[in-house]
Amino acid sequence: MLKVPDHQVAGHQGRDGKLGPLVDDSGRFFKPLQGDKRGTDEVAFYTSFSSNTLIPDHIKRFFPIFYGTQLIEASDGSGMQPHLILQDLSFGRSNPSVMDIKIGSRTWSPQAPEDYIQKCLKKDRESSSVELGFRLSGLQIFESKESGFWKPEKRSMTQSLSADEIRSILKKFVSTNKSGVLGSVPDCAFASTVYGGSGGILSQLLELKSWFEEQTTYHFYSCSILMTCEKELALNGKNPRADIKLVDFAHVFEGKGVIDHNFLGGLCSLIKFVSEILSEDCVTEPR
Amino acid sequence: MLKVPDHQVAGHQGRDGKLGPLVDDSGRFFKPLQGDKRGTDEVAFYTSFSSNTLIPDHIKRFFPIFYGTQLIEASDGSGMQPHLILQDLSFGRSNPSVMDIKIGSRTWSPQAPEDYIQKCLKKDRESSSVELGFRLSGLQIFESKESGFWKPEKRSMTQSLSADEIRSILKKFVSTNKSGVLGSVPDCAFASTVYGGSGGILSQLLELKSWFEEQTTYHFYSCSILMTCEKELALNGKNPRADIKLVDFAHVFEGKGVIDHNFLGGLCSLIKFVSEILSEDCVTEPR
Repeated sequence: MLKVPDHQVAGHQGRDGKLGPLVDDSGRFFKPLQGDKRGTDEVAFYTSFSSNTLIPDHIKRFFPIFYGTQLIEASDGSGMQPHLILQDLSFGRSNPSVMDIKIGSRTWSPQAPEDYIQKCLKKDRESSSVELGFRLSGLQIFESKESGFWKPEKRSMTQSLSADEIRSILKKFVSTNKSGVLGSVPDCAFASTVYGGSGGILSQLLELKSWFEEQTTYHFYSCSILMTCEKELALNGKNPRADIKLVDFAHVFEGKGVIDHNFLGGLCSLIKFVSEILSEDCVTEPR
Repeated sequence: MLKVPDHQVAGHQGRDGKLGPLVDDSGRFFKPLQGDKRGTDEVAFYTSFSSNTLIPDHIKRFFPIFYGTQLIEASDGSGMQPHLILQDLSFGRSNPSVMDIKIGSRTWSPQAPEDYIQKCLKKDRESSSVELGFRLSGLQIFESKESGFWKPEKRSMTQSLSADEIRSILKKFVSTNKSGVLGSVPDCAFASTVYGGSGGILSQLLELKSWFEEQTTYHFYSCSILMTCEKELALNGKNPRADIKLVDFAHVFEGKGVIDHNFLGGLCSLIKFVSEILSEDCVTEPR
């Protein structure tokens, strides 16, 4: 009944007897609790956030639904282990294109232990986080029924992309031409339907930004924005169901009356990339 | 003809035979070029910025006017030295209250030398920069003709203020009661005239923010926002001439198509502090 998810692009994966998340057939995602403080901290965040009546509904929709925790048989055969039960963000989607973008030029909280800070700082400097305010943690872009997904395997490479390379991938995410082919110019055929419009990704990012300009309750470190869309729907002239969700809350700290300027800065940087693609002269006619 | 400025709150000061800036009696401020790369970098920035026709006038007004460079007799008696000639931001002002706020949780560029990065990082973590996204580099608040200015001398203390202490100082900046008295509750009598209104500081900060959401030409590290107002004018029911100016451009780098998410994040944090004071229940009736 439980199986390894098909469309996971980042994080520990539960294949080949390793410990990773599982999904059921009714839209629930089981994420193993990390054994240390991170596991309990993530439960604490979901518990606090899901019961926080000050968070407006139009913001809550950017977070996976939280159903509690449960002991289930872990994917690595290590027996019954505690799991977070969350909304399966790929449930009911057909061949979703997914980008996992870790937001913030800094992935460490000032309260974290010194060795953890040094480890994160090194990674932030080696990846694109410090330069761009975010880094790509994983991605899969659907190409066609024949060729399937473009899913770069070298995680270390995607994390240290230059501004131009990020631009190119954000274009491929909304293009009809093959993603993997080196040097092909993305046509951005679906830029206006995926990124643009009142329900598009840019509009959702701007809603999130407004909230981050005000909220002083949570500081999100090492948290990702998951961008998803379904290219096949767009190809058939339908709404591509583009949306953003925040994921990974093992390093959320109390904001103590200060905004999360680190997340907000990175979010604004991402917004700039997306809005530039929308205003550029990409090929915009339908294929 | 040249003298040491009266209202400098941060940076090297030219008193007692030390090297520091000088002012003339026609509104010009002479800043000695720092001997190393910082000096030439600051000249390069002012030269680039002042001739950049893409910067709108309503943004240019937030920067000191640049008149070029000149060899003049240095304040430390070391003979003729190169100086930047800038607008004297205190010229024509009577007893200005001034806050120098260094913006950004990070004061170092990724391109800087490693030993400089480590020095800055240490200071960013020890001060309020990492937590709040900015730190107070200096301040003077005018109290009255009798008692003069409140000007905390311990620079290291002002730089590591907590969120609550920053809030309190931002309130004192717009209050009639004595600033130095421990525990006195600021009345915020001038919050609406200094921070609020269409020409007030909040509105200016928001204009600057809009520009930082778009501009990808410059990244400003270790740069300050100077907030100034004249309390005596407010006491007499006049416009307190509140304004903001950006200063200190020895660490400006090319943005290369990416927004300055570090400066923007810190700016948004400062904006949140100021807007909270405006919306709070301070005493708002005229004294």
